[in-house]
Amino acid sequence: MSQVAETEPAASFLTCNIPGDSFPKEYEPHTEEPEEVSKKPITDTPSKHKLKLQDIQDAQNRIKKYVVCTPVIEAKHIGKSFCNVMLKCENLQNTGSFKARGACNVFTSMSPSDRSKGCTVSGGRNFVSAMTYYGFRQSVPINVVVSKDCPLVDKHRFKENFAIVKVHGNDRNDASLHALTYCDEIGSIYVHGTDRLDLIAGYGTLGLELLTQLENMDAILCPVGSGGLVAGLLMAVKSLKPNCLIYGVECSAVPTMTKALQEKKPVMIQQKPTIADSLCCGIASQNAFNIIRGYLDRMITVDESWISRAMINILEREKMVVEGAAACPVAAVMAGKVPELRGKNIVCVLSGGNINSSRMSRVIDRGMAAEGRLVKFSVTLPDVPGAMAKLLAKVTDIGADVKSFVPERAWMRRDIFTVSVNMLIETSDLHHAKDLEKKLLKDYPHSHFIML
Amino acid sequence: MSQVAETEPAASFLTCNIPGDSFPKEYEPHTEEPEEVSKKPITDTPSKHKLKLQDIQDAQNRIKKYVVCTPVIEAKHIGKSFCNVMLKCENLQNTGSFKARGACNVFTSMSPSDRSKGCTVSGGRNFVSAMTYYGFRQSVPINVVVSKDCPLVDKHRFKENFAIVKVHGNDRNDASLHALTYCDEIGSIYVHGTDRLDLIAGYGTLGLELLTQLENMDAILCPVGSGGLVAGLLMAVKSLKPNCLIYGVECSAVPTMTKALQEKKPVMIQQKPTIADSLCCGIASQNAFNIIRGYLDRMITVDESWISRAMINILEREKMVVEGAAACPVAAVMAGKVPELRGKNIVCVLSGGNINSSRMSRVIDRGMAAEGRLVKFSVTLPDVPGAMAKLLAKVTDIGADVKSFVPERAWMRRDIFTVSVNMLIETSDLHHAKDLEKKLLKDYPHSHFIML
Repeated sequence: MSQVAETEPAASFLTCNIPGDSFPKEYEPHTEEPEEVSKKPITDTPSKHKLKLQDIQDAQNRIKKYVVCTPVIEAKHIGKSFCNVMLKCENLQNTGSFKARGACNVFTSMSPSDRSKGCTVSGGRNFVSAMTYYGFRQSVPINVVVSKDCPLVDKHRFKENFAIVKVHGNDRNDASLHALTYCDEIGSIYVHGTDRLDLIAGYGTLGLELLTQLENMDAILCPVGSGGLVAGLLMAVKSLKPNCLIYGVECSAVPTMTKALQEKKPVMIQQKPTIADSLCCGIASQNAFNIIRGYLDRMITVDESWISRAMINILEREKMVVEGAAACPVAAVMAGKVPELRGKNIVCVLSGGNINSSRMSRVIDRGMAAEGRLVKFSVTLPDVPGAMAKLLAKVTDIGADVKSFVPERAWMRRDIFTVSVNMLIETSDLHHAKDLEKKLLKDYPHSHFIML
Repeated sequence: MSQVAETEPAASFLTCNIPGDSFPKEYEPHTEEPEEVSKKPITDTPSKHKLKLQDIQDAQNRIKKYVVCTPVIEAKHIGKSFCNVMLKCENLQNTGSFKARGACNVFTSMSPSDRSKGCTVSGGRNFVSAMTYYGFRQSVPINVVVSKDCPLVDKHRFKENFAIVKVHGNDRNDASLHALTYCDEIGSIYVHGTDRLDLIAGYGTLGLELLTQLENMDAILCPVGSGGLVAGLLMAVKSLKPNCLIYGVECSAVPTMTKALQEKKPVMIQQKPTIADSLCCGIASQNAFNIIRGYLDRMITVDESWISRAMINILEREKMVVEGAAACPVAAVMAGKVPELRGKNIVCVLSGGNINSSRMSRVIDRGMAAEGRLVKFSVTLPDVPGAMAKLLAKVTDIGADVKSFVPERAWMRRDIFTVSVNMLIETSDLHHAKDLEKKLLKDYPHSHFIML
């Protein structure tokens, strides 16, 4: 099977930058509140200062000894026969994501008096992990407010870095709102997870690093949540190598930046559940939006099934653990969404690897199902001795592997002389699964083949 | 929890090399058949030529443009507070394992007439994958003989490289024996997977590469199956940096080299099932044994539970996919088997990453169970409405997560007024699991806590 879907049409181009436009060395940040948002987001007042390339370069000088210069690895399988894919492995960054760059920049540029007050944070696990990690190492006390639904493993990570963890509210928004009042109570500084220019400058160091690691980049595909990473990356790369294309990729369940570009301003959108959960932010960052508007070459969305297929391919073929968000750029390549990049050298940013193991097991199953390598079969058999053995032998002969086998008698609608069997079967690929279906249907006409 | 077990005693030192002995630049290979093996292994007649450091250097010059110079990554979590662990990522090598180095060296040093005859191979998936990959790329036709139990995904990989795959026999030994006669029939060259000096020289390039990547290596921990990798690595490293310690690590289920060192010659041993399946070879390579004897600083064995814990730690904390064999060195560090390396810079060779996804799901469960993060509970309840809801609420209050919940009525021995419930529960760690046990026992005296 080709690694790139041939059938799916390319997404329509959303933005209109002419590749090669040079990027101005600084931009005027937005200073007004976003208009017409359906629910007022928690954002810092956007900074009155301008973000300049120099800020990213300064950030790099400050943080370089505390963050990992993450390797760039040539993909062995993904995109092969279509283009040359390089993987920028921010999943190997400290704390398992690019957020380390931003968090480290926040602390290394903080005044001694602010450091002594300590910080209060709330938000996504990658951001909070990075803040607790560098807070501890830079001797800044950290308070974390999480909601009741915060996974065990996340709380455990925060506490490993000696953060004080407070549980409040039913969801992340409740927790964040509480963090805002709580930090006032305890006299600590609230650090918001998006929209801060010092975070964006920190993330931008990833772009500077890429420029030193690769000479021949034609395009960079970057996951987009609130947009901080793509904004920093774009400012760094377009300033120094303006003809390198920058694409943002987000999940179709939460297309915040796609929507912002369509509406010409960040708007609150309804969040749906997604494997790429760390992209769930509800609204694009105003500062990030202002930086990329007019310069981002394309915004692409990918659906859940392609994200899980990308994750399992990165896991199996590239031997890397990535979270759903980080798989989005690879998903875009695999889904055939970038036909214009045929033959090009493209970088997919693997933004992070923080996925908990029990969820990974489920992703593996989903990914295998999406690839047609895990199929469900319901077969109706005569309820006589030996009938089940015969069915299993048949499946084995076709070269497939039976993973589970559940006979169902009590709820049958047909009659008491038959039994229905639900099987979960592993096959080589979709072609093999279809072949299995054909052969089973011949002997068992009352069979239902269900691709998950 | 500390990452290094404090309680487990260090394994006794098996070999007696004084660290720092300089390694001779060549060694006399063994030319006799091994004596007293319980079952005659399939081996090439050991080469009459000497293996020299120069052979490894020549191999490096031949293969360097075809293999990946794999990154060395500092471990973020493993071994922390004990020593500085660096991971040599051969899981990111072409074909997902170090075998690529050997296979590439075989083909690049083959005469044109031998190339045109083609090769026949059999054996472990990593070796066969590497041979089919480089055979195709070096235009050498490859025939593969596999046994009936060869997994689907492996056959699929071999065919991707246009190898002709023949299925014969019930196990790998049957297939290998058949390959020996089959290659004569078709006039193809049989390439045995162990004991060839050109393979060992290829593997040795990993050692040369490490010497250029790291200045301060105190010790290298290397997985050992038949011993080819550790032999090549040892020859390269001890020749040029004699004071660097080289340790071999194998799984306690198949301690071929430990046994060989004890018996002073390779002996056939009974193979038990192990997660580190690619280390299963039955007997150590005679040539490898001759190279390392007297120079290997230690041989260590690790058990299945530590291997699965190492795999899940590499997956979760270091974001790398490795197979069981590759996790053995990390398992040795985590199990507290190298107390003498406290504070040292040590390299763990992640030899490969070829584990299929459905097996990975099982490894995740095993690893979590071994860490006390997945526990089984059997609880007896009154069979009245609301009893199950109360139990689930109780578990949730303790902060644990119920993964599965199966009430069992039909097979109860007690009475018809009670129901037994089997629960699979996710906890933060062993401490949390023990706490849960204590609290549940208070309300439900007929509870059994089963750590998997």
